[in-house]
Amino acid sequence: MTSAPDDTKSSADNWPANAPLDAWSKFAESDAEAGFIISENFRRYEQRDDVFNRAWWDEAVMSDDVVAFYAAHQRPEPRKGAGYTQWDFALLNASWSVARDYAARGMPDGRREGFLDSFDTFVPQAETRADLPPIAETTARIKQVAEFLGADLFGVTEYDERWVYAHAAEISSKTREEKENVSMDGMTNVIVLGHQMDRKLVETYPSALAAAATGREYSHEAAIVTSMASFIHGLGYRAIATTNDTALTIPYAIKAGMGEYGRNQLIITPQYGPRVRFSKIFTDLPLAHNKPIKFGAHETCSICDKCANACPPKALPKGPPREGGENRSAILGVTKWTSNAEKCFGYWTKLKADCAICMRVCPYNKDYSKWTMRLFQKLLGTGLRRWMLKLDDALGYGKRVLPLDWWN
Amino acid sequence: MTSAPDDTKSSADNWPANAPLDAWSKFAESDAEAGFIISENFRRYEQRDDVFNRAWWDEAVMSDDVVAFYAAHQRPEPRKGAGYTQWDFALLNASWSVARDYAARGMPDGRREGFLDSFDTFVPQAETRADLPPIAETTARIKQVAEFLGADLFGVTEYDERWVYAHAAEISSKTREEKENVSMDGMTNVIVLGHQMDRKLVETYPSALAAAATGREYSHEAAIVTSMASFIHGLGYRAIATTNDTALTIPYAIKAGMGEYGRNQLIITPQYGPRVRFSKIFTDLPLAHNKPIKFGAHETCSICDKCANACPPKALPKGPPREGGENRSAILGVTKWTSNAEKCFGYWTKLKADCAICMRVCPYNKDYSKWTMRLFQKLLGTGLRRWMLKLDDALGYGKRVLPLDWWN
Repeated sequence: MTSAPDDTKSSADNWPANAPLDAWSKFAESDAEAGFIISENFRRYEQRDDVFNRAWWDEAVMSDDVVAFYAAHQRPEPRKGAGYTQWDFALLNASWSVARDYAARGMPDGRREGFLDSFDTFVPQAETRADLPPIAETTARIKQVAEFLGADLFGVTEYDERWVYAHAAEISSKTREEKENVSMDGMTNVIVLGHQMDRKLVETYPSALAAAATGREYSHEAAIVTSMASFIHGLGYRAIATTNDTALTIPYAIKAGMGEYGRNQLIITPQYGPRVRFSKIFTDLPLAHNKPIKFGAHETCSICDKCANACPPKALPKGPPREGGENRSAILGVTKWTSNAEKCFGYWTKLKADCAICMRVCPYNKDYSKWTMRLFQKLLGTGLRRWMLKLDDALGYGKRVLPLDWWN
Repeated sequence: MTSAPDDTKSSADNWPANAPLDAWSKFAESDAEAGFIISENFRRYEQRDDVFNRAWWDEAVMSDDVVAFYAAHQRPEPRKGAGYTQWDFALLNASWSVARDYAARGMPDGRREGFLDSFDTFVPQAETRADLPPIAETTARIKQVAEFLGADLFGVTEYDERWVYAHAAEISSKTREEKENVSMDGMTNVIVLGHQMDRKLVETYPSALAAAATGREYSHEAAIVTSMASFIHGLGYRAIATTNDTALTIPYAIKAGMGEYGRNQLIITPQYGPRVRFSKIFTDLPLAHNKPIKFGAHETCSICDKCANACPPKALPKGPPREGGENRSAILGVTKWTSNAEKCFGYWTKLKADCAICMRVCPYNKDYSKWTMRLFQKLLGTGLRRWMLKLDDALGYGKRVLPLDWWN
């Protein structure tokens, strides 16, 4: 064990990318419980290595298609082909508008909230701390507030510095240089919120229309996570509201009991399958922790290649989880299914809208308000899963719905 | 008839406060249908006359309590008494945070979006107009988008210049001086969106906790109305997104078929009773219009004084609708039930949080997901209403739930 981190320094200083692995031995038990396999090759992730940032500085990703992809969000060029009309792009860009309004407001100060920087909150941290009931009741109240504010899923896990980006990326630098990340001093917990994507829109992936399902949840996330952090500030505790900025999200979501990690790079949840986005709040408010859950999704992914087979650029891996990946966007030292982010994003830029075919075709992408689908999920979690996967094919689930059908 | 307005001028110039009544004779038929009775005393409303603005310039409203009321939203002072703890104020202020973030962003430019000024939209109006299907289908699509973005109710009515404020109020002037309102040139329609308030919180009025039900809908309104206007902009049409700014809302909501006007100054909707807030979008997109609806609510209010009796400062009127009111916050020349806004707001400032006892005790404030409550509403709309009102009392509906019960 190394000595306790000096909490007067930023978390990036406390936990340099090359920290010895035993610094994190305190997580060994919960890692095992969550199925995390982490080797000595592990390095904290650099945000500038994610493919959306590499699009601005790395020639392996930059292209005319990338420029056109981003331009389409400002000035769409509708084209023939169902799903890319002016109506579709109008909904796509409208769905993003709240998230983009939040991202825009700090730009004069070099802050891109929700993408590269954590959110400012309307309510500053109160000077006095509220009286807290017993921890289970405090946690139940926080969950109730999250649901009141519109979160679809709620979980809590311990703060884990490994998933905080080694550095943030600097928006005002064209090359997205590293900059110091927000300080996590004293943080003890991470609240993870799940935001359900619209099922009917997801059925129309790939299309500009379907991408509105993503945009709407980015907007929900921005609104809900800033409100939640404002609430915790009102109680007198620290709260850092984040979406894609500041830290990876999936490891926290798994430990917070949201679901299992899938071959399609998405968390498979019992409630909505893979059709969920996540936001998170770092806090020092004392809260009870959830446990990771298992319902057979990992075993299903192990024998199911529907997403990998359906992926047009063949960006998804076959076979068992492995360490590393095919390019610098991969997380190092973690054994998992890892996509080729360059191939994935390259396909998005050709479409000029995001693709989530891997979400649409997933056998877990079902309407779980129906008991038949809940039964289907149960059986997928058993030794019958090969038969259930065949049934899924036979019944034609996961087929693309025409975007025009959504409008009419 | 006067000549057609010169649409190169602002709407405030086109329709001065003293325009002759026959300028509006074109609305005579739809006024009759909606039950609007408007006399020659009618004047377009000045936003600086609403009680929230008068709090800043009119000595009849200004007080130490007013100052403390607004301060409590920045720096709450929790106090004894269920419903006013630090937890309650924390939720109240968190619930408002999105609306306040939008209101704050334009302040350096003297704009207070959603309160005194219409909203900026993320998406600018596209230069090309989208192909529109037949008007009924266009309207159905717009409704679908409104629901996708989170609106609970949707209606459309014709643009009516009478309800646009004669002038906006100037935020950068301490006395909220009149300023020119946003231009409504070419506007033909008004889309009205309804936003359901949380039933369980409304049961705890009055309390800081309950006021979170209002705050959350302000936040929903800001997010949804800006997204809707962005969508219409994406189609290449004009769209002005508004909540409390720019124009009165209730007259449009009535004509758009949302419900009937109640003694408690609220629109009684069939879906949620009086527990709804409204936002609106002015547009030149061609849309089909809704018709006003009648389901007996006006007749019920005519013989029911539950709200007026329950109002601590006795701010609500008894007897039939009348023209005018008791102070300058009243709308002139419209026959309606009109509250004494000074008494109403005076009570809010004493509580340091808003009051909506009149919403809580309304016999239409029910959970209409239950068939028994839908039946109750049906019967309230018939000659049995006196008996139903007695039953409502006998069953104890409308009683205050303790805020602590909401938390636990």
